This record gives sequence, structure tokens and C-alpha cells, in this order.
Amino acid sequence: MTSPRVEHDAFGPVEIPADRYWGAQTQRALAVFGIGSERFPDCLIHAFGLHKMAAAVANQQCGALEAEMASAIVAAAAEVRSGAFDAHFPLTVWQTGSGTQTNMNANEVIANRANQRLGQPLGTKQPIHPNDHVNRSQSSNDSFPTVMHLSAVLELEDRLLPALAALRDSLQARATDFADILKLARTHLMDAVPTTLGRAFEGFAAQIGHGIARIEATLPRLLMLPQGGTAAGTGLNAPPGFAEAFCAEVARLTGLPFQPNPCKVEGMAAHDALLELSGVLNVIAASCIKIANDLRWMSSGPNCGLGELVMPEDGLTSSIMPGKRNPTIAEVMVQAGMQVAGNHVTVTMAGASGSFELNVAKPVLIYNVLQSIRLLADSANTVAERVIPGLAPDRARLARQLDSPLLAATALNPVIGYDQAARIVRHAMAHGVAPREAAIALGILRGDEYDRLVDLERMARGVA
Amino acid sequence: MTSPRVEHDAFGPVEIPADRYWGAQTQRALAVFGIGSERFPDCLIHAFGLHKMAAAVANQQCGALEAEMASAIVAAAAEVRSGAFDAHFPLTVWQTGSGTQTNMNANEVIANRANQRLGQPLGTKQPIHPNDHVNRSQSSNDSFPTVMHLSAVLELEDRLLPALAALRDSLQARATDFADILKLARTHLMDAVPTTLGRAFEGFAAQIGHGIARIEATLPRLLMLPQGGTAAGTGLNAPPGFAEAFCAEVARLTGLPFQPNPCKVEGMAAHDALLELSGVLNVIAASCIKIANDLRWMSSGPNCGLGELVMPEDGLTSSIMPGKRNPTIAEVMVQAGMQVAGNHVTVTMAGASGSFELNVAKPVLIYNVLQSIRLLADSANTVAERVIPGLAPDRARLARQLDSPLLAATALNPVIGYDQAARIVRHAMAHGVAPREAAIALGILRGDEYDRLVDLERMARGVA
Amino acid sequence: MTSPRVEHDAFGPVEIPADRYWGAQTQRALAVFGIGSERFPDCLIHAFGLHKMAAAVANQQCGALEAEMASAIVAAAAEVRSGAFDAHFPLTVWQTGSGTQTNMNANEVIANRANQRLGQPLGTKQPIHPNDHVNRSQSSNDSFPTVMHLSAVLELEDRLLPALAALRDSLQARATDFADILKLARTHLMDAVPTTLGRAFEGFAAQIGHGIARIEATLPRLLMLPQGGTAAGTGLNAPPGFAEAFCAEVARLTGLPFQPNPCKVEGMAAHDALLELSGVLNVIAASCIKIANDLRWMSSGPNCGLGELVMPEDGLTSSIMPGKRNPTIAEVMVQAGMQVAGNHVTVTMAGASGSFELNVAKPVLIYNVLQSIRLLADSANTVAERVIPGLAPDRARLARQLDSPLLAATALNPVIGYDQAARIVRHAMAHGVAPREAAIALGILRGDEYDRLVDLERMARGVA
Amino acid sequence: MTSPRVEHDAFGPVEIPADRYWGAQTQRALAVFGIGSERFPDCLIHAFGLHKMAAAVANQQCGALEAEMASAIVAAAAEVRSGAFDAHFPLTVWQTGSGTQTNMNANEVIANRANQRLGQPLGTKQPIHPNDHVNRSQSSNDSFPTVMHLSAVLELEDRLLPALAALRDSLQARATDFADILKLARTHLMDAVPTTLGRAFEGFAAQIGHGIARIEATLPRLLMLPQGGTAAGTGLNAPPGFAEAFCAEVARLTGLPFQPNPCKVEGMAAHDALLELSGVLNVIAASCIKIANDLRWMSSGPNCGLGELVMPEDGLTSSIMPGKRNPTIAEVMVQAGMQVAGNHVTVTMAGASGSFELNVAKPVLIYNVLQSIRLLADSANTVAERVIPGLAPDRARLARQLDSPLLAATALNPVIGYDQAARIVRHAMAHGVAPREAAIALGILRGDEYDRLVDLERMARGVA
Repeated sequence: MTSPRVEHDAFGPVEIPADRYWGAQTQRALAVFGIGSERFPDCLIHAFGLHKMAAAVANQQCGALEAEMASAIVAAAAEVRSGAFDAHFPLTVWQTGSGTQTNMNANEVIANRANQRLGQPLGTKQPIHPNDHVNRSQSSNDSFPTVMHLSAVLELEDRLLPALAALRDSLQARATDFADILKLARTHLMDAVPTTLGRAFEGFAAQIGHGIARIEATLPRLLMLPQGGTAAGTGLNAPPGFAEAFCAEVARLTGLPFQPNPCKVEGMAAHDALLELSGVLNVIAASCIKIANDLRWMSSGPNCGLGELVMPEDGLTSSIMPGKRNPTIAEVMVQAGMQVAGNHVTVTMAGASGSFELNVAKPVLIYNVLQSIRLLADSANTVAERVIPGLAPDRARLARQLDSPLLAATALNPVIGYDQAARIVRHAMAHGVAPREAAIALGILRGDEYDRLVDLERMARGVA
Repeated sequence: MTSPRVEHDAFGPVEIPADRYWGAQTQRALAVFGIGSERFPDCLIHAFGLHKMAAAVANQQCGALEAEMASAIVAAAAEVRSGAFDAHFPLTVWQTGSGTQTNMNANEVIANRANQRLGQPLGTKQPIHPNDHVNRSQSSNDSFPTVMHLSAVLELEDRLLPALAALRDSLQARATDFADILKLARTHLMDAVPTTLGRAFEGFAAQIGHGIARIEATLPRLLMLPQGGTAAGTGLNAPPGFAEAFCAEVARLTGLPFQPNPCKVEGMAAHDALLELSGVLNVIAASCIKIANDLRWMSSGPNCGLGELVMPEDGLTSSIMPGKRNPTIAEVMVQAGMQVAGNHVTVTMAGASGSFELNVAKPVLIYNVLQSIRLLADSANTVAERVIPGLAPDRARLARQLDSPLLAATALNPVIGYDQAARIVRHAMAHGVAPREAAIALGILRGDEYDRLVDLERMARGVA
Repeated sequence: MTSPRVEHDAFGPVEIPADRYWGAQTQRALAVFGIGSERFPDCLIHAFGLHKMAAAVANQQCGALEAEMASAIVAAAAEVRSGAFDAHFPLTVWQTGSGTQTNMNANEVIANRANQRLGQPLGTKQPIHPNDHVNRSQSSNDSFPTVMHLSAVLELEDRLLPALAALRDSLQARATDFADILKLARTHLMDAVPTTLGRAFEGFAAQIGHGIARIEATLPRLLMLPQGGTAAGTGLNAPPGFAEAFCAEVARLTGLPFQPNPCKVEGMAAHDALLELSGVLNVIAASCIKIANDLRWMSSGPNCGLGELVMPEDGLTSSIMPGKRNPTIAEVMVQAGMQVAGNHVTVTMAGASGSFELNVAKPVLIYNVLQSIRLLADSANTVAERVIPGLAPDRARLARQLDSPLLAATALNPVIGYDQAARIVRHAMAHGVAPREAAIALGILRGDEYDRLVDLERMARGVA
Repeated sequence: MTSPRVEHDAFGPVEIPADRYWGAQTQRALAVFGIGSERFPDCLIHAFGLHKMAAAVANQQCGALEAEMASAIVAAAAEVRSGAFDAHFPLTVWQTGSGTQTNMNANEVIANRANQRLGQPLGTKQPIHPNDHVNRSQSSNDSFPTVMHLSAVLELEDRLLPALAALRDSLQARATDFADILKLARTHLMDAVPTTLGRAFEGFAAQIGHGIARIEATLPRLLMLPQGGTAAGTGLNAPPGFAEAFCAEVARLTGLPFQPNPCKVEGMAAHDALLELSGVLNVIAASCIKIANDLRWMSSGPNCGLGELVMPEDGLTSSIMPGKRNPTIAEVMVQAGMQVAGNHVTVTMAGASGSFELNVAKPVLIYNVLQSIRLLADSANTVAERVIPGLAPDRARLARQLDSPLLAATALNPVIGYDQAARIVRHAMAHGVAPREAAIALGILRGDEYDRLVDLERMARGVA
């Protein structure tokens, strides 16, 4: 254990573990905030690396930073982006509402690393200073919300959109597989009319497909970055053209069309764009809960439930009922959806809480958004890979369900009228006979007429 | 008081008040559901009129209804659409989850009215039958969700979008008015840097402007109607082309491009499109809460608050503090926003609760969505008309705020560096002197250098 | 139509419809707030009557009001309490966050009615003045929150607690009825072990019974009234002993032990006691959702669902599937629960939003609390009366479920060990044989040993 | 890196890292669930140690486990309770909804550790078997919810209640310190009447004090444990007296009066007791948000805010505005409160989602409850230690606020009447004069009368 080094900031000296790249403000923050254990996910730290790379390039282009200094910052920030310095971001989510401490943490790590690459020991702040150079032309006020947008968009692109596409495709594939399997449709949980198993999966696939479209509809506002607003959206200390140069570099590095928010204060004082995204994540969560619950019910049993589908075996079982198989992954998807719905309320309260030129619930807001993205993506991937492809319809059972004679009545409406059809059903239920018998007994239809009108296959197709 | 008439349905005779146009199923529902007092807003009843008009036309076009019958239904339904029969929809929101009772109520009122127009007394179901003709080619399963979409879209178009445009425009007008008024920017509620009052209002206007764009981004999915799915999304009993003819007629009547949902079951088993909308209403609520709170704080005082703005007088005062003026309308906007945020959670739970081919939380879902639209629209209109135009900046007070010498430090960063600027601030605060004095005392800057660097007007504009 | 009368307040003259008892501030408020259509429920208006009665008595006892004036106020306020003046409270919920306008409305109606009883025309404010006498020793700051507590507690006592007791008792009665009916227990929706139908209903009854206890646990804080705090909790203008005299009179009138809140500002600046209550309503909503969903599933079918119970017929049916019976009332209970859960979020945001000496989200807060109470009470009553007593178990079907041979395995654990039991189950499932056969085939148990160990009746009772 | 060992379960062999104490089901679960990164907090793992200690003792007492085996289990479980095996619980929260995998994880770790202490290598399951002995007389169905209750109650007792007491005491201490400092009371954010700074802190202390009472009111139901219910609440395979013996041992080990839930299925199929607790945590969160926001506003400035209090310096500052001090810890408390409010919605959805004999949203439910407890406790402690004691009132500024002449009007009401007082205020505001001048000018009061009536000190005390 080497002895700690000492760094100085405006408040005096601070001892820092010798092998850590963070600086005085991070160390002070560790002492101030002993709250909770939740960390920002790595993707936010990596987005800070990306952000500081682009800022250095933009500063150089605007003449606000010399090429050597910019290069040193870019190189060090690229390492942060790559994940090499994750262990040097020790703070939890529970910090000042502007995210200042994590921005300072990034400034300090990158300055220390850049100086080290230039042959200096840690803690010198020479030649690269965390505020004067790494944070140049920036404030936490604009940098942190920019990183919020960057991390959210990258997680959507890299994680959630592919996962949803995989889930949609797996569902659509089964919709095709099951297109010809007749099945009972249920409304109000009650036996309704014949339909097909494929149609149920088409519905699921459509929900997820729309989820993708919903995310895409939020991107125009998520791609707008408040960078360049600096303190309170004024642009103070940022050279002309900085916002444009920054966004261009971020776009180059990511391949995504990020652009300056034309109203900087809107992007700092409010986080409506992220709340909008959270609202869409909430819709996707609702879709996932609906689908997972349907799968749970359709595979309930094996004997005394609906038993229409058999889930693939996963090797997990009960601690007291040996060999019992449960819909484990579907239950995770439901629980993940509930977490997303709760996170959304946190994001709503955080989003509504801004005052004047700054919203100061940024850390909790982005923490929840990124958690929601991750949970939806991971559970979508797991369901798409481990559940959907292996679902096995119990064809015998599905076929047996259609014996239910009451299903037929609806098909009679257009011919004999709703009131007569209702008489048949009530007679059949009251006397425990089939509707065909009831129709004949009531003198409403002859047997051959009945048989011509009632055709389950045709009913399932909706061709009356 | 005339004696009630008797109508019959499949369950037998029912007594109905003689002057009411509803029928047996509505009357039975009144007896079953004695729960709460919340009614659907009139706009939903009117949308049912619109819906049944279009259904009759589509039925005729598809050959499923004769022209005379279709005409009679269209005429009666048009009266429902116009509001003439609002008093004949007595049920509360608290009914079966498919909205069946209100669909039946519409069928019964329209059948009775159509028959009456054809010279029949109420209750004959001849020649127009509520199920066989008014509900022809339909189920509550597809009609009620179609009406949910219709009413939501019409309320957006007729009520919320114009209100938001008015609010945005009023805010933007004041942004122009206030473009040259310097004002203190606050971050973390603490004195930060100079900005302009106009910039604050630009931020507000941008939030509302984005809100409009967010609503528009949900329309593609709201304009998709599940009509034609009939029972459980099968299309059973609907003639080919019915969905297309229905949407075409609705589009003609409303001037809005409604289209058939290609996946009927998606639009009946889930209500993701309405949950998506509710998510956007939730964002707008958050924007409104933020703006209203800023206005409340900026006009706090009159003496001991921030006192930057004076709200227009509204004639309302305290019951114990005579003449005290309070930000009444801004408080309503905040409260309305809270209602919308809570409604959104109800909509989320309702939206996630579907099983198989039908979501059965439709009434509570649409009730909350329509209430949210109304509250946002009304409060936006009231703020736009009664608050924003009359806001009076207290210029003397705004100017006095900028005397705060600490504001200057940020402008020094690029020249003397963050650490030296921090030394000046800390020296100034510790010794109760102005930063200019501190800079000179510490030997960092001469007075003339300081004066050249620190220019509040320039700082406010962000031109460093 | 008589011409309107003119009343005056500090802001000048106002025209008021001649037959309305409200005064100038109410009329002005009508013009200012054209927002939404939601009214406070009558119970809040009646609680205002009760409140002003007690205030007049307390004022007299403290020497702050002469006996004749107090009597006149009490008589008029008693009429408001009785519901006779409901039509004279025209304002919606959407008013100033202190509820001042509705407090003024009460003051004005009572003053006008008292003066009328004393022979004066409406609008004289003589001899009874709405502020100086009806509102004497009070502020909206303390009166409105006091009325919030009064109305909530009275609704709990008069409406919700009896309804929950009825629901609990109906469930417990069926638990007794069904004590001996064996039934399959399901965990993860999968077949688990034998249990009894009675035990399921015991669980439901226990949930509701705890709900009652939960409400009772909140009463100590709901019974504390902030009356006497007047403006901002200072007690300014209230005579010594006023709070005590007020609470004593309210207690006398209601029979409930209301007491002064020892910290007035706590009861005005925050509404934690009502938020606590809302949290308990939210638990009860969750209980109701759980129970209603179980009932829906247990009665699903009639043929292709679980079909364990048959719900009593209610005369309502589908608009397209004639004679189809749906669990209508259970669906209402679920939807009501969702509304309560969403209302709770509104109440949370409202409750957290206080600033300094006053919370100004009072109207929206109490509106949601009272709606939640009403919806829970009405749906509990309806389920208790119309659903639970008529539930009919399908004994044949329940018995058939227990044929599932896999149920037996759990009983073998203590004798042969979990791993051997698991081998039997996996062998049975893989070969499609009964566990008894599998146990013999694997040489783990003889048939007679197996039969001795596995006894469904004993398993259901939990006596191993 | 040693080669992995192989363990077997009912599904076959599994490779496990040689130095890990978990077994086959845990290892399989790791492969199945690659979802999210959230772990249960250590306190839940430790509660599992406690739980399995008590179960072994109860089994021995009931004659279901030999003394040597029970001792070995107790010794190993005590190590889990102590935290020595935290690293051997690798699963995330995102697992089956019954928590089965973490229960199995505990069974496996304890069995392996117990066998190791008895001289066996890991993986033998001899003589202690994870299911047959560690899990004896138990199911995940009853063990996991029991551990949910245990961990929640212990976290309340050890963490949250002490933290809230510390916060309440720190607030109360300042209430005493500030009892004589006059201050402006604000209602609707507007200048109202004089009060004292101490009264504001009394209000805060009362809120937190009630929060403690609220937690205590939930304990009767949290102290009821469903242990003994085993599979689906039947009690199958648990010996008579097991539940009682288990609770007695847990009570002995913890000093807390845990008792058997008389209705086991209630404690497994629903988690109303934990939802009730979450509702109370939500109230405390709202209290904390209110208090923290008031502190933020009262210390806003330093020059252009309210500036009534100065927060203690924490060494943290802005990245662009050197030396700027922000209310960092108060912002954390607000954000933590928002997280708790969102978590509560997740808990609500989870709590409402049970089906039949089992709620299968247990992991997400307890994860959120425990996170909420931790965040409230940590932020309460931090505020109590680092913020409240160091708050410094700006007495000069507080005094200056009371110069506001409009404050006086309320005191005049009882003497001159509300309407005359209102005239004075309106005259004063319209002519920019003091109310005293206005009263004289309007001929309502003489100067000496005015001075006698208006006494700010007396007004602040509420002695009219």
C-alpha cells in the first residue's frame, strides 16, 4: 500500500489513494456523499469519454486549445471511452443534481491520465488542467445533460433497438409457424370464438414493432444536444461555433446525426426529451408485461391450466416440488416491466422538478432511464433467445378447446338475428345441450342449416 | 310522470323510463353497477355518434345494410354526434372492461331514435334493431377501442393542440418583449451568471413547442383503427372491405386520415397507442409544472420573494389576509399536471393488463386519457389568456440583482484560469469584499484589467 | 329569470344570479377558472357545513362571537351540512391550491343564508359577514385542511369501513362454505399441490381484514386537525382555546375523537396524514385487484378456462356474442383499483409539493383521496352483495384437477429425499406415466408404500 | 485457476468454479438469467443466514432434524448471516418471481459450507443436502417471503428508524435554537404574516416524528411471518409446531417479536404488508422532499435568493463557476425521495400482481423496498449530520423581511373588519404608501390606534 498523494483545489489539500486517477473534488465528494450504493452504468462513463474527446477537438477547431493539449486530452478521453478507467469513477448516483461531481471526476481522471501520458506524475494538473483544459468551453450545466443524451441514444442504438428487433422477429417467425393452428379466442377470459394461434403472435409482434417505431419517433429530440450552453444556457466562455463543432465530432465518432439544441436552456432546465423517452420505455414495458403474461397463461398447467403451449425447459425447478417447471424467464420480463414503470414515475417527478435555468435531478433521472433501457433490452433478448423459439403448441389440447359448442352462436347472428341466437344459447346453457340441438328444439334452424352456417375454420379466418 | 315502457332482451322484460331512449341492456347495467359518479365526457358520446354513422355507411357500401336502414341510422347517429342525446347515456365509467354497456347504450339510443324517426314508438326494435343493424358488422371489441381512438384524436385536434399553440405563442411573444431585459440566471437556486428574461421565456416556449411535436409523433398510431376486427380480432361477421369503408367514411367526416389497423388484435388486446399518448401528455404536464412553478417563483413576494415579475390581478384574495394576491392560475396548472401524472399511472396499469385477445380496462383507460387532455388544454388556455400577456417585469429589481459581484468570476476563467478565479471568489466571500477588490488585493489583476474582462451585458449574451 | 343582484367585495361590484346564495369571490372565481368539470364530492361540501357549525360554537365559547350571531351561523351551516345547498357550490376542483375559493364559497353561502333567516335579502353581508363572522378566527389555511381531514375521516367511517367489513364477511362466509372442497393450488400458474377452496377465500378475507386494520392505524394522525393555526400556522386572530373548543364541538357532532394538531404548521404545510391514508387505500386497491383477478380466473371458461367457479348471472352480455357472460363486476373492481393506484401518485406529488408554511395542492389532493375512498367502497359493496354470495363451485371440475399425478411428488420428499422424488417426476414426465408407476419402475418405492405416502386429502390439509 | 468441480442435480451435471460455494441450481440460473446487474443488498443475504439458522433449530425442536445436522447447518448459516459468504451469491434480482434461485443459492452455500466444516469437499451434498436438510420443512414459497419480512424489519430497526430519529432530533434542536428568530411566513410563496424560524423547524421535526410513528404502525403486520406455509400455504411437509418454533428462534436471535402469520396463504399470495410499508416510505420521502426543498429555498442566494439561511460549506463547487456553493446534500435528499416514490409504484404493481396461491413478483418487490429504506436512511443521516447542525440564519436579512408593511393588515381584521382592512391594503398598494399611512388617509384608524394594533412580535406568536 503506497501512501496517498496530495492534490489541491480551491478549498485546500486532499489525500487521494496513490493509484487512483481521480482528483480533489471527487475525493471530497466521496466524503460528503455516503448515500446508497447505486453507480451509474459503465455506458455513462464511456459516454463521458466520448464527450471529452469531442470537446477537445471542438476546442482545437475553435482556437481555444492548442493541438498538443487537445491531442493529449483526446487520447486520455478515448481510454475512458473504451472502459479502461471504469474503476476510477467511484461516486454513486447520489450526488448534486447537476451531476457536477461526475463531470469533475471525468475532468480529473482525463487530466491525470493525459498528464501521465505526457510524463507527469498524477496530481500535477500540469500541463493539462481538469477545469481549464478538459472542461474548457464547458460547464457541468451543459456537459452532463449532453452526456445524458449521448448515453441514452447509444444504449438505444446498441442495446435496445437490436433486442426489440430480435424479439419482434422471433415472435413473427412463430406467427408464421402457427398460422394454421386453430385456437380458442378469449375475451374477458371467457370462451369467445375460434381464432388462430398465429394471430396471437402477430399481435405480439405488432406491439414490439410499434415499440421500435415509438423509440425512433423520440430520436429527433434526443439527438439535440445542449452542449455550448455552458453556465445556465448563456454560452459564456464558449467560443463561437463550439456547439456546432462539438456535435459534428460526436456525429463523426458515433455515426449518429447529433445536432445542437437551438434553445440551450431548454436542454438544461428541462429534460422533457428524456421523459418522453421514458414514456416510450414505459409503453414497451406494458407491451412486454402483456406478452409475458399471455405466454405464462397459455403455458399454464401442465394439466390443470390452459396448457396450450409448453415452454422450453431451463433446468430450474422448485425447492420443494421436485421437477416442477415454472415460467421463470417470462416472470422476469414481467418484473422488469414493473421496474420500468416505477422508474418512469421517478423520471416524471425528476423531469417536472426543474427550477429556472437548471434541472437538478439529473443523476437520478438518467440512472433510471439507463436502467430501464438495460432491463428491457436484456429481458427482450433472453425471451427472444430462450423462450420464443422453443415454444411448443399442444395441438391436441388446442383442438379440444374448439369443441365448445357455444362458440358457434356468433356465426348465426347475420342469418337469424341476435335475439334468436341469444335464445339458442340460453336454451343450450339452461338444458345442458349443444346449440345445434337447441336450435332444432326451438324450431329456429334445421340441422343441415345449422351445419352449413357454423364452420369453425371459416369463423377463425373471419370470413363470414 | 308517465309510466315506464317495457323492453325485452335475451334475459326478459325490463322497465325503462318512458322518455329515455336507452334500452334493456343499459337499464340492466344501471342496476348492476352502482359504483362511483364519474361519467365519460361528452366527447366520447359524440364520437360514438360519429362511429355509428360511419358504420352504417360502410355497411351499406358493403351490401350489408339496405339504404333506407342505413339512412335512418345515419340520421339518428348524427343527432348523437351533435350532442342532442347526451342525457340518454346514464352509465358511469365503472362498467365492464370492454365498454360493452356504453356501446349497447349507443346502439339502443340510435335504434330507438331511428325507429322513432320512422314513425315507431320507442322500444319496438323495429325496423332498426340495436344489435342486428346499428351494431352490424361490429362488436364492442372493435367498436369501443375505435371510439377511444376517435375521441382522443378529436380532442387533441380540437382542444389540446390549439391550446398548446396559444400557450407557446404567448410565451414566445413575451420572449421577444423581454429579449433585452437582463436578469440573474440561477442554477441550484443559487446566483449564477447574467442572462436575459427573454431567454427564460424562450425556454418555456421551446418546451411547449416540443410538446406539440410530441403529440404529432403519436398520431400515426392513433390514426390506426381496429374497426373490422369484430369478435376477438377475427373479423367474424364483417363483410370484406368493411374496415376500409369505415375508415374512409370517418376520414371524410372528420377530415383526418384515419386508417385500418393492419393487425386488428393489436388494437383490441392492447392499447399501447393510447398509453404512448398518455406518456406524451405526461411530458407536457411536466413542462407545464416546470413553467408554472418558475412563474410562481419569479413573481413571489411582492417584497420578500424574488419579485422579478408581477402577475396580473385576478380579483381573488385570501379569506384572512385582505388584499393578498396569490398566483392562483399557476397553482391550478401545477395541480392539473399532477392529475395528469397520476392518470398516466392508471393508464399504464390499464394498458399493461390485457389478456389474450382483449384488454378489459378500456373504460378507465380512456376516461383518464380524455381527462388529461381536457385539463392540459383548459389550463394552457387559461394561462395563455389570463397570465402570460399581463406579466409585468419589475425592471428595477431585475437590475439590482445583477449588482451581485460574484457573478463576475466565471468570466475570468478563460484568462486567469479556474484556480485563480476560485481564489478571488473565496477571498471575496471570506473578507466580504467585491471580487474586483479581491483580485487586486491578491495581485491577480489590476482594476482596469478586471473591468475589461467583466461585462455583464456581454456575459448575458454569452459572447465571451 | 330575475335580474341578477350585485354584491361588493374589495375589488368592486359583481353581478350574481338572483337565486344563488354564493357571493362575490365565488362569482369572480367562476370567471377566472374555466378549467375542467370535476367537482368536489358532496361529502366535502357537507363537511364544510359541519366545520362552520363547530367554528361558530367555538367562537361563541371563546367570546369571539355573540350568541345570536353564532346561532344564526350554526343554523345556516347545518343546512349546508344536510346537503340542502349543494347546488350553491358551483366551483370545480381546479382553483387556488389552498382551496380558498371553496372556503369563501362556504362563507358566502352561509352568511347569505343566515342573513336571510334573519330577514335580510341576499347580498347584504349584514348582520353576518362572510369573513368577519362565518370565517371568524379562521383562515382558508387552516379551515380547508381541517375540512379535508373531516371529509376523509367521515367517508372512511360512513362508507369505506362498512363496505370493507361487508366484503370481508362475505369472503369469510364462503371460506367456511368451501372449507372441505379440495382444489388444486397453483404457484407460478403451474399445478402445485392440493389445497382447499376455503383456504383461498380465507386468504382473501385476511387481506381485506388487514385492510381495515390499516385504515384504523392511520386514524390517530387523521383525527388531528390544524384548525386554530389561522394564517400560516401562527394562530393569529384566533382566541385562546379556539382549537380545543372547535375540536370538542366537532367530536360532539360526529362522535369521533378529533383533536387539535399540536403542531399547526405541520397540518397546513404538509398533508402527510392524507398521503399516508392514500398509501393504505393503495394497498386495499392492490388487495382488491388480486382478489378480483383470482375470481375472474377461477370462473374463466365456461369450458376452456379454469372453470372452478361460476359467477352469478347479471343479465349483461356481449354485443356480438349473444348470451356470453362476462365477469363484469370483477372487471370494475380491477379498474377501480387501477384508478386508486394512479390517484395515489397524484396525491404523492401533491403531498411532496408544499413550500414553507403552506401546501398549495390541497384541492387536487383531497379530490383524489375522496374519489379513491368512494370507488373502493362502492366496488367492495357491489362485489360483496352481487358476486361473492352467488359464487358456485364446480365440484366435478375441482375434483378432476386433483387427478394430476404429479401433485404427489412433494409428499415423497421427507421419506425418499428430494433427489429421488425429482427422478420419479422426470421419469414420469419423460415417459408419460404416472409417478406411482415411475417410482416402481425406478425401484424407489413399492406400490403399497407409494399409496401410503400419497394422500391428497391429507396433503391439502398440510398434515404430512 | 483450478479446474471447476462438477455438481449434479435432477437435470444432470453442472460445472462450478472450484472455489465457489454455490451449487448446481445457482450455476444453472446464472446461465439462464443474463439480465441486468442489480443485486439484492447484503442485508437480504444475511437475513437468509438468519432464516436458515432458525429453520434448523426449529426442525431439531420438532424432531425433523438430528442435533448434529442442525448444529452444522446453524454454524454455516451463521457465517452467511455474518456476511462472510456475500461473494457466493452471484445472482441478480432478475430471477423467478418466487425468489427460488436465491433460496436455492442459500441452501447450496450453507450445505456446502456445513459439509466442509464436517470434513467433506464441496459438492458432495453429504451429509447435509441443500433441499432435504437446509431447506427441510420449507419451500421457497414460504422461505423467501419470510426473508423479505426479516430483511425489511431489520433494516427498519437497524437503519431507518435510528436515522429518522437523528434527523428529527437535529431538526428539533434547531427549532429550539431558532425559537425567537422572527421570520416572514409565506403562503402561495407570497409574503403572509410574521412567524418564527423555530416554528418552521418544529414543523419539519413533527413530519419526521410522525414518519417514525407511521413505520411503527406497520410493524404488527410486518412481524407476521408466513414460514410454515411451505408449498402454496398448505403446510405440507412441515411438522406440527414448526412455524411457532421458527418464529420463537428468530425472535430470540433478533430481539424482535416475530410471530406466525395465522393465514399463511395471505403472506405468500400477497405482499400487502410490504406494500403498506412502501406506502409509509413514500410518505417519508414526501416529507423529506418538502423539507429539503424548503432548506434549498431558504438558503437560496447568496444575494438574490431568499438568503435566510446559510448552508454549511462542503468543499464542492461548480466546474465553471469557481467557488460557487450549491445545496448538494439537500438535492440528494430530493432525488432519493423521487426514487422512493417511483420504487413505490413498482412495489404497487408487484403487490397487485399475485395469482392464486403465490405472488411471483417477490424479487423486484423486496429489491425496491430495501433500496427505498437504504436511500431514506442514508440521506436522513447525511442531512442530520452534515446540514442541519451547521445551518446559520442570516438574522439581518430575516429581520429586514419583516419591514414589509403589508404584513400588518391581517392583524386589523378583528378590529376594523375584513372589508376595511382590504380597503387599506388596496389603497396602500395602489398609491405605494405604507398601510399605516393608508389607514390614516382613509380615515379608518389614527396612527396611535394603528400602532397599538400592529405588533409583529405578537403577531408571530399568534397572540392577537
